[in-house]
Order: sequence, then structure tokens, then C-alpha cells
Amino acid sequence: MTITVAIDCMGGDHGPAVTVPAALAFVRANADARVVLVGPEETLRSCLGGAVHERVTLRHATQVVGMDEPPSLALRSKKDSSMRVAIDLVRQGEADACVSAGNTGALMAISRFVLKMLPGIDRPAICAALPTMTGHTHVLDLGANVDCSPEHLLQFGLMGASLVSAIEHHERPTVGILNIGEEEIKGNDVVKRAAELLRDSGLNFIGNVEGDGLYKGDAEVVVCDGFVGNVALKSSEGLAQMLGAFLREEFGRSTLSRIAALLAMPVLKRFKNRLDHRRYNGACLLGLKGIVVKSHGSADVFGYGFAISRAADAARTGVLARISERVAQLHPQLETA
Amino acid sequence: MTITVAIDCMGGDHGPAVTVPAALAFVRANADARVVLVGPEETLRSCLGGAVHERVTLRHATQVVGMDEPPSLALRSKKDSSMRVAIDLVRQGEADACVSAGNTGALMAISRFVLKMLPGIDRPAICAALPTMTGHTHVLDLGANVDCSPEHLLQFGLMGASLVSAIEHHERPTVGILNIGEEEIKGNDVVKRAAELLRDSGLNFIGNVEGDGLYKGDAEVVVCDGFVGNVALKSSEGLAQMLGAFLREEFGRSTLSRIAALLAMPVLKRFKNRLDHRRYNGACLLGLKGIVVKSHGSADVFGYGFAISRAADAARTGVLARISERVAQLHPQLETA
Repeated sequence: MTITVAIDCMGGDHGPAVTVPAALAFVRANADARVVLVGPEETLRSCLGGAVHERVTLRHATQVVGMDEPPSLALRSKKDSSMRVAIDLVRQGEADACVSAGNTGALMAISRFVLKMLPGIDRPAICAALPTMTGHTHVLDLGANVDCSPEHLLQFGLMGASLVSAIEHHERPTVGILNIGEEEIKGNDVVKRAAELLRDSGLNFIGNVEGDGLYKGDAEVVVCDGFVGNVALKSSEGLAQMLGAFLREEFGRSTLSRIAALLAMPVLKRFKNRLDHRRYNGACLLGLKGIVVKSHGSADVFGYGFAISRAADAARTGVLARISERVAQLHPQLETA
Repeated sequence: MTITVAIDCMGGDHGPAVTVPAALAFVRANADARVVLVGPEETLRSCLGGAVHERVTLRHATQVVGMDEPPSLALRSKKDSSMRVAIDLVRQGEADACVSAGNTGALMAISRFVLKMLPGIDRPAICAALPTMTGHTHVLDLGANVDCSPEHLLQFGLMGASLVSAIEHHERPTVGILNIGEEEIKGNDVVKRAAELLRDSGLNFIGNVEGDGLYKGDAEVVVCDGFVGNVALKSSEGLAQMLGAFLREEFGRSTLSRIAALLAMPVLKRFKNRLDHRRYNGACLLGLKGIVVKSHGSADVFGYGFAISRAADAARTGVLARISERVAQLHPQLETA
């Protein structure tokens, strides 16, 4: 089976300077894969610089969705944008998945409009993996939905568990719900009700996970409201950046500490590699009738390659069919309030 | 002016083994301060081990609030607990502030019952400082309130700004609201409405702060719902622990890396000190007619000392009067829905 991934080459902070070389490297490393590069043909050709590959094709698109463009405008007026054409390829069955580092809101809106939702799922959710003490955990939603009902959180649990069981070949991954542990309160009513639904869902539900539990690896899948998930993800990014900056500052403070840094370099490099956020690049937009992966806008070639791999893996392992199956099993519980 | 701090000596994971030595060290270092140690007199005496100090007095209390005890039960049945008696001392004017490392829910419930709320404030909020790239930022609420109205978030802004202006002698600290930046959404309705209220409040409001902005130091005060604040705080704690564990693992991996660790020790120590969470111990329960500071349950003597200092600072600088003043200025806007 050959997997075809459509690449929105114009999305992201660096556009084709990153997306084209990443796509080339990806097909070279994956003999079962093809890519379709989407964007203005001349731009793509100049980025390829004469490189040709039988599993790389180009698809011309004249427009580009701006990083700050309102999603509704992008949806209405950018019907020939690289983003839209890449998503169209998925709908038409010409690609098995698409990847974009562009405007998240526009990607969500256009994907939803073009691909539609899977039956039984109300809203798409953004799902990504985070590193933990023991491996990694998949968290959703990371920002697509700011007001979730208990039924939405249940749907997130089904989708996240389907994704993990598909790509990690682990049939019953543990699922937790992000909550707070203050004695008096233990979460709001939505979270309490969602926990009840998850408990009755047949998933391997382990109950509440607190913020620090995300990194302890308490559960393989953690569900939360997109507002909370986004704040947890971004505050973690901010903290990691701050710690990195402090570490560099302290190692640069004196001649002696610079010598220590030199000696500690292999160790610090291993430490850095282990946490390299580029290896975690690529968030799945789950719940659509098609595979859409969002890369970080600032991703480099190395990081963008991980997003393409994630899209190909989701297609290879049949994530959509697994989500549909689980949803069908649980249909009565999924009706939203 | 002498400041008197009542100490709930029985609260926390270590009880009087931590609280009593920390209180002694505190009075020794602060010539203007007195402490009242609250707990079973015999226990306190044995922890003092013969140490006497003219500015240390004991107050007998026969009961202890358990760390997992339901707050409503603690409120009803533990009227002679060290926690309750310490708070009573504040109400009676015998202490200017109190500190506890005990059960957060019980501390909130008893404080609210005994001390009552300041006029114009509906709910207490938990406020603590976090380290940032440029200094530190005060965040509230960190877990007392899981469902906040826009008016509550406005009240948090007023209280946070009053606290910072008092203890840091900075009249108009910047205030931001925690939000998410996804293009389509930009936060839920409560956050949007709260931002409008804050913009019209006369505070130095700078608008939205995203998760990573917490650590960039985008604002000196950041307001948020207690659910989101608690998740952000705890996920940061979890991440910091994981990074510390990874760093130790990498430095311990081989003889060579252990030698590097030895040479890098002074640098790593400076790095660790800079982030030492114990220096940030002590969260204020704001909005009450009295100063109550919550220490982390696992705090050691060094960390607990910071919580006592925080309580004393809040009393010295007249935080309560400042909050009341600001509230009076804004009274019409503070009426809750």
C-alpha cells in the first residue's frame, strides 16, 4: 500500500524553504510514500532546484492563506490557496492525509467545511503527544474548542484512544481526564459529568489526572477542554524556554563555567535531544473524515519531517476507521446535550 | 510597629518538625516580628526542645485538621484545631496574619467562615508568585474557584494589583488576563467580557497573556479561572520535575558524564537556586478580612520560612486596606451577575 501525503507548502513561518526539503527527505526515507507539493508551481520548482523524484508531484495553487487572516475570510475567498487545495486532495481521495504549518483557525475551518465530521463526532479536536517521565502522552483538545460539554470530552477520549491504539499498537491505552485536586472542589460540573461518561464508555479510564500528572505519564491519553489544554501546553513551552535560557546564562557566566559547559557538552546535548520539541511536532485534527496534521508554524526541516511522518502513520494505521468503529459502539451515549 | 503571625503548627506533611524551627528562625531574623505557635502545647514544647524566645508564644489547640478531611467536616467539628485557632487569632486581632501548610479546602472554608469577605469581593482567590525570565509574576486564581464570572476575574485583577503594589512598592503594576491565541477563537465569552471590564477598571491592563507569556513576564499580575490556573501551575511543576530528573539521569549515565557533573556542579547549583520553588512558597488567600497564607504541604524549614515572611510582608504593607480602597473606587462595576 502506498501512502500519499499532500503538503501545504506555503504554510508556516518559513514556507517552501522548509516544507519542500522536508517533503523530499520524507519520500527518500519512506519507500511506501508519495507526496504532492501544493503551491505556486514556479515557487515550488525554484525550491526544488532541479531535484526530481518519481514519488514527488506538484499541484499548482495560486493563493496563500495569511498567518493572521480571519478563518472565515480564508474559507470564503481563498478557494485556490495551497491550504485549501491540499485539503481538497484528501477529500477527492488523491491524498491519504495532508499537512500544514499555516494559520490554525483557517486550517480548522476549511478542514471542517471540506471534509465534514465523522458521524457521532461534533467537533474536531487538536491532539498532540507530550514527552513524559516514562515515554509520552497524547493530550486533546489543545485549543480547538473553548467550551466543551461532557459529551465532547467523551468524544475526545474515544478519538484519542483510537489514535493511540492505532499508531502504537496498544489496544487499550489508559485514558485520564485533566482535573484539579483542591480538596473542596475537585473540578467543575462538566469535568465530573464527563468522568462519569468516560467511566461507562468501555475505555480503559483511570480517572483524574492533575497538571503534574501530564508529565508523570499518569495516562496515555488525557482529555481536557481546549482552553485548559492550550494553556497547559503553552505554559510548558514557556517554562522550558525559560529553563533553557537560565541554563545557558549560568554556563556562560564566567570562564570557569564556560569550561564546565564544554566538558558537559555531550551530556547537555543528550538532555536537549531527549526533549527536542521538534520530535513532537505535528498535531492531529481528529474527528474529521480525513487526516489533517498541523505542524508548528516555526518548525524547521527536521521538525516538519516529523509532522509529515505523523500524517503518514495515521493514514497507514487506519485511525479514521478505528474512531468510527468505537463511535458506532457507543452511539447512544454520544448524543450531545 | 510589631507584626504578629499565627502559625498553624500542625498543618503540612511534616507538621511541627518543620513549622516550629521555621517560626523560630523567622523571629530571630525579624526584630519587628512575633509569632504565636498554635497546636497541642506538649507537642510544641517538645519541638522547641527548651528553646525560648520572648517574641514566641504558644497557644494550645487540641485538634488537628487531617490533610484529606472534607472541608465541611473540618469546619463543623474541628473548632479547637490548630488551623481554626490560628485563624481565630487573626479575627480577634491577636495576630496580623496566619500561615498554614494544611488542607487547602479546609483552610479556605474556615477562613471564609471566620474572617468573612471584604466588601465588594465575592470569593477568595489563591495568589502566588512564579519566576519569569525578567523577575516574577503574581498569578490568581490558582485553584479556589473553578467557575468564575467576568466580575470575579475583575475582582482578582484588583486584588492582585493591590497585593503587588503593596509588597513591591510599585503603584501601577501591569495586569493581564490568561487567554489562548488560536486565531478563530481567542478565548471564551467569560474571558472576553472580563477583558472589557479590566480595560475599564483603571488598572494598568495590558490585555491577553498566553500560557508561554506567564514565564516571559508579560505582566506583573495575571488573572485566570482557578481551574486553568491550577492546571498551569501544576503542569509547570510536573515539567520542572521531569527536566530535573532527566538532567540527573544524563549526568549520571557514565563515568565521564559524572566527572562533567562534578565540574559543572557550581553552575548547576546556581541554576537550581535560581529556580528554587521554596523561594516561591506561600500563596495568599486574597479577598478575606484578614491575611491568610497557604504554604505548600511538603515545604521544608527553608520554604516554610518564605511563607511566614510573605504573611508578615502582606501585614506590614497594608494589603487589605489597599484592596478595600480599590474596590470602593470601582464599586458599581463589581456587582456580580
